[in-house]
Amino acid sequence: MRLDLRQALILFAVGAAGGLIGDACHVATGTTMYLDDTFPFIWKSQMWFPIAVGLATVATGETRLRLGPPRPGHSPVEAAAAIASVIALYALTAVVTDEDPLTATVLIWSLAILIAARFGGGIPALVCAILAAVLGPLAEILIVEADLAMYAPSADGLFGVAGWLPALYFAFGIVAARLAELIPPR
Amino acid sequence: MRLDLRQALILFAVGAAGGLIGDACHVATGTTMYLDDTFPFIWKSQMWFPIAVGLATVATGETRLRLGPPRPGHSPVEAAAAIASVIALYALTAVVTDEDPLTATVLIWSLAILIAARFGGGIPALVCAILAAVLGPLAEILIVEADLAMYAPSADGLFGVAGWLPALYFAFGIVAARLAELIPPR
Amino acid sequence: MRLDLRQALILFAVGAAGGLIGDACHVATGTTMYLDDTFPFIWKSQMWFPIAVGLATVATGETRLRLGPPRPGHSPVEAAAAIASVIALYALTAVVTDEDPLTATVLIWSLAILIAARFGGGIPALVCAILAAVLGPLAEILIVEADLAMYAPSADGLFGVAGWLPALYFAFGIVAARLAELIPPR
Repeated sequence: MRLDLRQALILFAVGAAGGLIGDACHVATGTTMYLDDTFPFIWKSQMWFPIAVGLATVATGETRLRLGPPRPGHSPVEAAAAIASVIALYALTAVVTDEDPLTATVLIWSLAILIAARFGGGIPALVCAILAAVLGPLAEILIVEADLAMYAPSADGLFGVAGWLPALYFAFGIVAARLAELIPPR
Repeated sequence: MRLDLRQALILFAVGAAGGLIGDACHVATGTTMYLDDTFPFIWKSQMWFPIAVGLATVATGETRLRLGPPRPGHSPVEAAAAIASVIALYALTAVVTDEDPLTATVLIWSLAILIAARFGGGIPALVCAILAAVLGPLAEILIVEADLAMYAPSADGLFGVAGWLPALYFAFGIVAARLAELIPPR
Repeated sequence: MRLDLRQALILFAVGAAGGLIGDACHVATGTTMYLDDTFPFIWKSQMWFPIAVGLATVATGETRLRLGPPRPGHSPVEAAAAIASVIALYALTAVVTDEDPLTATVLIWSLAILIAARFGGGIPALVCAILAAVLGPLAEILIVEADLAMYAPSADGLFGVAGWLPALYFAFGIVAARLAELIPPR
């Protein structure tokens, strides 16, 4: 592992907390609905959800560091801004769930590209973002196929998940990669 | 006073004008409603409202300058961007009034943090923002308690005011502090 | 011409593609409606629309280069961010079509000013933006007068076009001017 234990734990905690906050918005607005309550809920999420997002954050951060040397600097303000940008986008997806799907998708993709332009760093960040934009929605499609959760009918146009979901994961990949750079190793 | 008269007057005018514009959005969308028309209206606001926002802007700017030396530079473009960012956030709160309160609060807080990361400047700005985030909603809670105004039922979850109100005042505090730096003394 | 053929073609293509994407959002949400199908449709637009936006992008870029020397640098990330910012704003206008017109206009103008602060470059960019903010809505008012298209009743308060339309064109002018700087000559 390129990440040390402390970096990995911070990435996991940030990812799990961010996933809980964003998922709470999705559940509260009806963007998504859990269809299975086998596991306990943490806030509004089945407990596997924040764990999965936390692990995905660690995996993305590790991938970032394997793809090239991190940019120097460890600004906590930059880290807070990166996290806030993807949580804002997450909450915005909940707001636009009832909007026209094309418009919602264009809006979320445009903002994801702005997040990438602001926080991304060349090819390594782009690879992380593309991997996230492919694997994240794929995982959620399998979750929907397994009847564990569903998206609102107004936002299920991409094989049962929302059309804007790849853009949200794209921004997630950018931010997780940036955080891996920003969290100082021990 | 650390602010000279010219700086104080500009801060008052910017705050009062911004308050009028934002309040007009709140009134027009039904986010807030005046229950008392003792004083004349200016546009859609009881006249005490822009005066209060103007004075709060001056007080925040004065606080900022007492907390430490201002950062150098007096860019009018930076000032315009700072003002535009908090007015955009103000208008957005009006748009999300009918949305799920949790989602609205997460969205507005995330964007307030982005505004703080962009325009804030260390501890002095943060202190101004936290003071504004506490005192502003507190003042509005008293206004609601006094039956002078009310928030829409969809946005009154924080002791009668909106859950996102502290975030809006947080961004206001950051921007007022920034403007105190950006307006050149005589 | 200050633009060489390659620059002009790229500006035309970017403008036409952006116009198609944004217009598709407007048509899909009912913000605008075509009343005349004399010409073939490209996606959701009458084919003259993307052509007009492409030509306006070229004209704005040419105007920018005549007004002064371009700032140095040809960052493709900056170009992508500039394009994404105006497409995000375009999609957002579609989202806020059913909102209170004053609030929508304040929001879109505030964000347009943020785009100008971020991507603009002094007087030449400002002149391009103001020209676009005047001529663009004027052209659309004529289109509405000619019964070729209409705006939704909730967004037709400015002589038949939306109150936020000048702000959208203002941002367009800023971005087209920036792209003229960013696309390297042959």
